[in-house]
Amino acid sequence: MHFKDWGEDPFIEYISKQFPSRDNLIGIGDDSAVIPKEDGSAWLITTDALVEGVHFLRDQITAKDLGYKTVAVNVSDIVAMGGAPQYAFLSIALPKMTDCTWAQCVIDGIREACGKWNILLLGGDTVGSKRDIFVNLTLIGSALQSKIKYRNQAQSGDVICVNGYLGDSGGGLKALQTGAIKTADVQRLIDIHFRPEPFLDQGMWLASHHEVHAMMDISDGLDCDLSRLIKSSQKGAVIEVNQIPISSTLSKVSMEQSWSALELALVGGEDYCLLLTIAPQAFESLQNAFQSQFHLPLFPIGYINDCKGELAYTRNDEAIQVDYKNYNHFQ
Amino acid sequence: MHFKDWGEDPFIEYISKQFPSRDNLIGIGDDSAVIPKEDGSAWLITTDALVEGVHFLRDQITAKDLGYKTVAVNVSDIVAMGGAPQYAFLSIALPKMTDCTWAQCVIDGIREACGKWNILLLGGDTVGSKRDIFVNLTLIGSALQSKIKYRNQAQSGDVICVNGYLGDSGGGLKALQTGAIKTADVQRLIDIHFRPEPFLDQGMWLASHHEVHAMMDISDGLDCDLSRLIKSSQKGAVIEVNQIPISSTLSKVSMEQSWSALELALVGGEDYCLLLTIAPQAFESLQNAFQSQFHLPLFPIGYINDCKGELAYTRNDEAIQVDYKNYNHFQ
Repeated sequence: MHFKDWGEDPFIEYISKQFPSRDNLIGIGDDSAVIPKEDGSAWLITTDALVEGVHFLRDQITAKDLGYKTVAVNVSDIVAMGGAPQYAFLSIALPKMTDCTWAQCVIDGIREACGKWNILLLGGDTVGSKRDIFVNLTLIGSALQSKIKYRNQAQSGDVICVNGYLGDSGGGLKALQTGAIKTADVQRLIDIHFRPEPFLDQGMWLASHHEVHAMMDISDGLDCDLSRLIKSSQKGAVIEVNQIPISSTLSKVSMEQSWSALELALVGGEDYCLLLTIAPQAFESLQNAFQSQFHLPLFPIGYINDCKGELAYTRNDEAIQVDYKNYNHFQ
Repeated sequence: MHFKDWGEDPFIEYISKQFPSRDNLIGIGDDSAVIPKEDGSAWLITTDALVEGVHFLRDQITAKDLGYKTVAVNVSDIVAMGGAPQYAFLSIALPKMTDCTWAQCVIDGIREACGKWNILLLGGDTVGSKRDIFVNLTLIGSALQSKIKYRNQAQSGDVICVNGYLGDSGGGLKALQTGAIKTADVQRLIDIHFRPEPFLDQGMWLASHHEVHAMMDISDGLDCDLSRLIKSSQKGAVIEVNQIPISSTLSKVSMEQSWSALELALVGGEDYCLLLTIAPQAFESLQNAFQSQFHLPLFPIGYINDCKGELAYTRNDEAIQVDYKNYNHFQ
């Protein structure tokens, strides 16, 4: 069997079975690994790779944005557990004919992002590559053990929320893929695709509330990542598609380009906002407190139920079929 | 300017200048980064990438050896600082037509190596790649802060030592590159190239002795790595080439193949043995104690002097010129 027919999750499951966790460590299967420290805090560790031709095209993304994004996607994994990033380790593989200025711009973007989130780059590996560029970052963060949020803690009845508009990044990617004319709106979506902005303060605030049960980031699209959350929690979920937050920019561009904004919101991916579940009785007060704190809404989009592993969709409370194709890294 | 004309060290220097270290952390420039813990120990962190077409060829190395080697080269960086490895994070990028069994064998090799050195694989990233395979491991180890060895601590007069034969791995690579007939001896060199064996116990033992001043591993060849050590220590070095340990296997194969065993020992690379400097008055007793403990020799090959940045070679105490070309990842 080839990788394209196997997919990422079965491969991760295979690896996970080969390396059972022990010593109270949380390993493979969440956004970050968790290594407890004796003082009640814990290290959070994550690693993410960006590969030319799969995650980016060299003639579309600027070198600086590539560096910035490499850091941002990893920060998102730390934020998703309720932690703050601290130390980074970079591996970069470059073909011999890469222009040095281009490589320096990647480093500039990494430096900008590290500065923004107060991260120290402490090491790495610089190697040659035959053809394609690979950039990998390992990011270490920390959090109080008691505040860390996991994806396997969703409870039946929980309100499912996201803290940002979905599909903008997917719309930006689609604009690049289809060669859409770069109006100001289209450019805005492309900018969001190239410069994801993880919500560090919001993640830490949400993690400090025990009424938030499960949390993760949306990197592969709501449909894919919510499926992972309910699988991990051994629960089910219902999403009301009319409640999914879609930006006015994406709505407008989708109309103009005859795209399905809903499809982009569900499977476009790379949103890097937070997906969380909240105890129903606490939802309203938490939503209000969040709004007061950040002047931004927390969007309720559905609820958790006991239908183990089932992700259902409704429109105005009537069941609908959604079968958009999730992105497969190996295809 | 292109990367092939710039090289790895100037690029690392560029990155290092962009990210000055702070908070008593040791960052870019040694085998591992060092993050002190409050209990007197420290985390050691390193990351190393293997790229298809640069570090390995898919039709030469087995998938299992590739997995094993990915772990071993990182273990060597932790060992070089006197630490023991603990936690690993794997990023692997695979083309969509990669056979699943092949990928599983990579994981098998990683599992074998992790088992051997008691490492827990705690996370990673599995992604697609357009053409080439890319494997990156980040390894976290630990050591007592007081025992950690750095490459910048060499003192004038120190005896320079290595703890293993040099050039075997380079000979194995050369055999593969030249298509040498695989006699038992040639196969032995190839096996060493594919399965490096970092010296965990010896590294920890050496690190526990304060008479050992500077230590690092030899990954890019003695010439290149000793140049780094003296640059970092702001010292010079003289190496007596007749004292460089060369295995009887490499001597024999080099004779048969008309290779220069000395060239392979100096610039072949991937030896993954330890390069260290020892206070001269302590050398003999330390050498004897090492021999008693491990039943293996510690080879003295030269001494440190004050000729800042100068690496000189002698043969029977007469100066000789050595200008073998160091391997450049970007060429």
